[in-house]
Amino acid sequence: MGSEGDSNVLTMGTLNPNVIEIRFGLESPVFGRFNDLVNEIESGVEKPFTKIINLSVGDTHKLGLKPITFLRQVLALCAYPELLKSGDFPEDVKARAEKILKACGKGIGSYTDPWGLKEVREDVARYIAERDGYPSDYRDIGLTSGAAGAARQVMSLLMTGKDTVKRTGLMIPVPQYPLYSATTSEFGGYTIPYYLEEGTNWSLDIMELERAIAEAKPHCIPRAIVVINPGNPTSSVLTKDEIKEIIKFAHRHRLFLMADEVYQHNVWADGAEFVSFKKTLMEMGPPYTQMQLASFMSASKGFMGECGLRAGYFEIINIPPDVKAEITKSLFVKQCAPSTGQAVMDCVVNPPKPGDASYNQFIQEKTFVISDLKKKSKVVSDFLNSVEGITCPEISGSMYAFARIHLSEKALQAAEKAGLIPDDFYCISLLEQTGIFTVPGYCFRQKPGTFHFRMTILPQMEDLLYALEKLKEFQTNFMAKYE
Amino acid sequence: MGSEGDSNVLTMGTLNPNVIEIRFGLESPVFGRFNDLVNEIESGVEKPFTKIINLSVGDTHKLGLKPITFLRQVLALCAYPELLKSGDFPEDVKARAEKILKACGKGIGSYTDPWGLKEVREDVARYIAERDGYPSDYRDIGLTSGAAGAARQVMSLLMTGKDTVKRTGLMIPVPQYPLYSATTSEFGGYTIPYYLEEGTNWSLDIMELERAIAEAKPHCIPRAIVVINPGNPTSSVLTKDEIKEIIKFAHRHRLFLMADEVYQHNVWADGAEFVSFKKTLMEMGPPYTQMQLASFMSASKGFMGECGLRAGYFEIINIPPDVKAEITKSLFVKQCAPSTGQAVMDCVVNPPKPGDASYNQFIQEKTFVISDLKKKSKVVSDFLNSVEGITCPEISGSMYAFARIHLSEKALQAAEKAGLIPDDFYCISLLEQTGIFTVPGYCFRQKPGTFHFRMTILPQMEDLLYALEKLKEFQTNFMAKYE
Repeated sequence: MGSEGDSNVLTMGTLNPNVIEIRFGLESPVFGRFNDLVNEIESGVEKPFTKIINLSVGDTHKLGLKPITFLRQVLALCAYPELLKSGDFPEDVKARAEKILKACGKGIGSYTDPWGLKEVREDVARYIAERDGYPSDYRDIGLTSGAAGAARQVMSLLMTGKDTVKRTGLMIPVPQYPLYSATTSEFGGYTIPYYLEEGTNWSLDIMELERAIAEAKPHCIPRAIVVINPGNPTSSVLTKDEIKEIIKFAHRHRLFLMADEVYQHNVWADGAEFVSFKKTLMEMGPPYTQMQLASFMSASKGFMGECGLRAGYFEIINIPPDVKAEITKSLFVKQCAPSTGQAVMDCVVNPPKPGDASYNQFIQEKTFVISDLKKKSKVVSDFLNSVEGITCPEISGSMYAFARIHLSEKALQAAEKAGLIPDDFYCISLLEQTGIFTVPGYCFRQKPGTFHFRMTILPQMEDLLYALEKLKEFQTNFMAKYE
Repeated sequence: MGSEGDSNVLTMGTLNPNVIEIRFGLESPVFGRFNDLVNEIESGVEKPFTKIINLSVGDTHKLGLKPITFLRQVLALCAYPELLKSGDFPEDVKARAEKILKACGKGIGSYTDPWGLKEVREDVARYIAERDGYPSDYRDIGLTSGAAGAARQVMSLLMTGKDTVKRTGLMIPVPQYPLYSATTSEFGGYTIPYYLEEGTNWSLDIMELERAIAEAKPHCIPRAIVVINPGNPTSSVLTKDEIKEIIKFAHRHRLFLMADEVYQHNVWADGAEFVSFKKTLMEMGPPYTQMQLASFMSASKGFMGECGLRAGYFEIINIPPDVKAEITKSLFVKQCAPSTGQAVMDCVVNPPKPGDASYNQFIQEKTFVISDLKKKSKVVSDFLNSVEGITCPEISGSMYAFARIHLSEKALQAAEKAGLIPDDFYCISLLEQTGIFTVPGYCFRQKPGTFHFRMTILPQMEDLLYALEKLKEFQTNFMAKYE
């Protein structure tokens, strides 16, 4: 035998080229720098700051918010039904766990239907119907491993191959949480970026959609448009009129609508309101009511923040029965979503009602999280806008600020000299000098020549204010150095 | 607007053709017939039997075996850490839950590393090292949503496109649990079937592997071989010598080894023993030790049977660092496996030790399941072989009998007249006349001209004996009718 590499089948040369093409923001050196920093501090290296604040991820619990008791109690009883005999759990918790266990047949250790437990899907459908005022059919609901699982499932249906001029184009907002562009790459599709308008609070302009689709047509068959509402990373909340215009656009171009609505509980700005694509489409009447639409929801965001449990769902409407049978088949191959996540999703869409034993505690906990985040959304955007050289639209929804940094010519030259993309140069400098970890704007894509960072508003107020002060101090020095 | 279909983007005509090509056994009408039957009985339709026994799925809990207490107690405490204060849980359960919660940082609601919690992966690596007597590195372990998630992750790396002569070929056993062929279709790869030898207890013949790969070469680049050991549906257990021959074959043809070892705890035949591919490869020494190999494991099988929790792992060895970085990226896009499943996997690979408070109960429960299944494996194969017209090799491992049905010319004609594949004709007749639900052999692929059904050995003994008696009665009548 020859050299070591001889028996390697899997090398960069043979690896699935779609995997290589994936961009998920991780190409930024800031992530590696953060890991190094954590290790350095653990091994006693002195730093010019006392603590690291990780503002890079929308992970509610990691940043200090508490799980909702009702939901975790139900999960514990489902996991270990012996606890049903205990006197320590409220009656509604026991009743809910019993309902889910009954739906499972012989407990959460069994496979569920590949679409998920019928009883949970019925609760999801009731939640949607109550939210929108229009019916929802449980047979249109699929329970998944988070919204990422939901989006992957729906996106995979739309793909028609890579090595052909017939490949599928997906319209994807810029900036965007990179799930959609990354998955499009992985599945061999073509990303059609459309730019949101920063100057008007990241609003969506139909002329820009028209430009984007016209430019893409020589390269693909545009088949779908993804909208994230409330926006990630933009934090904007679409108005009903904006949604109507998008629906008309999608109808005009025969596009499948994909509405990422995972932040539907996270709306902060006065006057802003979450309106679902499904509701809007129903209000518009025929022919729009016949359009195909998938909406994605998650238990990872909202007031629950259960990222680790991997609970999500899709609602997919106006799908012909033959296509639905194909969806069933493709779900079977992957097996069901975790039963634990399904149980938790049931609690999210069907929380305790007034009069239930858990109701008061549930409302108290939920209200605390929501009002806490609302407060933080204002604190963060007010603060950021008070810092010279940084602008940030009002944080209308979601869990992030996507702040623009206005870099001087001198700063851009310094970045170039350091061999770094300007946002990386900024975020790495910020991290190394202050311990504040934010994500460079280009990880979410942005208009060429503009630079941003994304930070989450989730940390506890004390940490958040500390981080903002550090950021201001850094920015002041940065401006002075590169003025 | 015109007719209803006008706004449909997603139709059978535009659906991802790879999805349409998936075959997962569900094309058999027996599944629909089973659902109809359940509905008919619920609505009071009279049937010539009193109960339905579903022998179609390897779902341990659904068929009456109990979950392992230790594992569920740990899960309950992780879900609701308030229970750590309770006096009702053994100390080792509390310690384990505390260890997992600490690994999570702020509880199971947080995202974990995309490869899974380091501490759980370390426990997996220790388990493998102890099992094999060779080191295992936690950085080679990825925690996944069941073994299906593990197999999908690894298979996706190997795919190089469909619409090209360079597409990836995967060697896949026949018969096989259809995950591998279905996922190959979904990912646009090329399935290279190799036949196991029924006459010698489904053994694996190297000449057959050579034939299969030679025939496939004009159609694809063969890059990997999948082996399921212990076998599903075949229930065979490979000897170390057989594994050595497969490894040599894979080395000769530069194939990536994929070892589905989810039934490693389910070995029944006297003298049979589970030996891992990794151990064998290590024993063989260079150059084999440098081969790339992935092994898949699951919490859904074994003595635990936790199908619904979606817990699995892969171990992947000899992967260059640049490729590993690509794996990390592709795992990030999907997000982590459920934290609940990760917690349970930790209990599976690191169960209570002698002296631990839970040890006695754990061993008692585990031993019960294992000895119960061992007993059933013998009952089922002895019984099936006693029935005229049915043969079934010894059930050496796994949870199934894959029984051959010897159909007369008259029976084949009757099937043709009914417009059914012969195995479907048999299994549907069996279902409708007795309520016994088995899966036709062709769902797993089989040698042309041979016919089988798969049944699980999992039901409680009483139900199992009832089902076997019904089957015998049916077979006797069937033989008489079509002699």
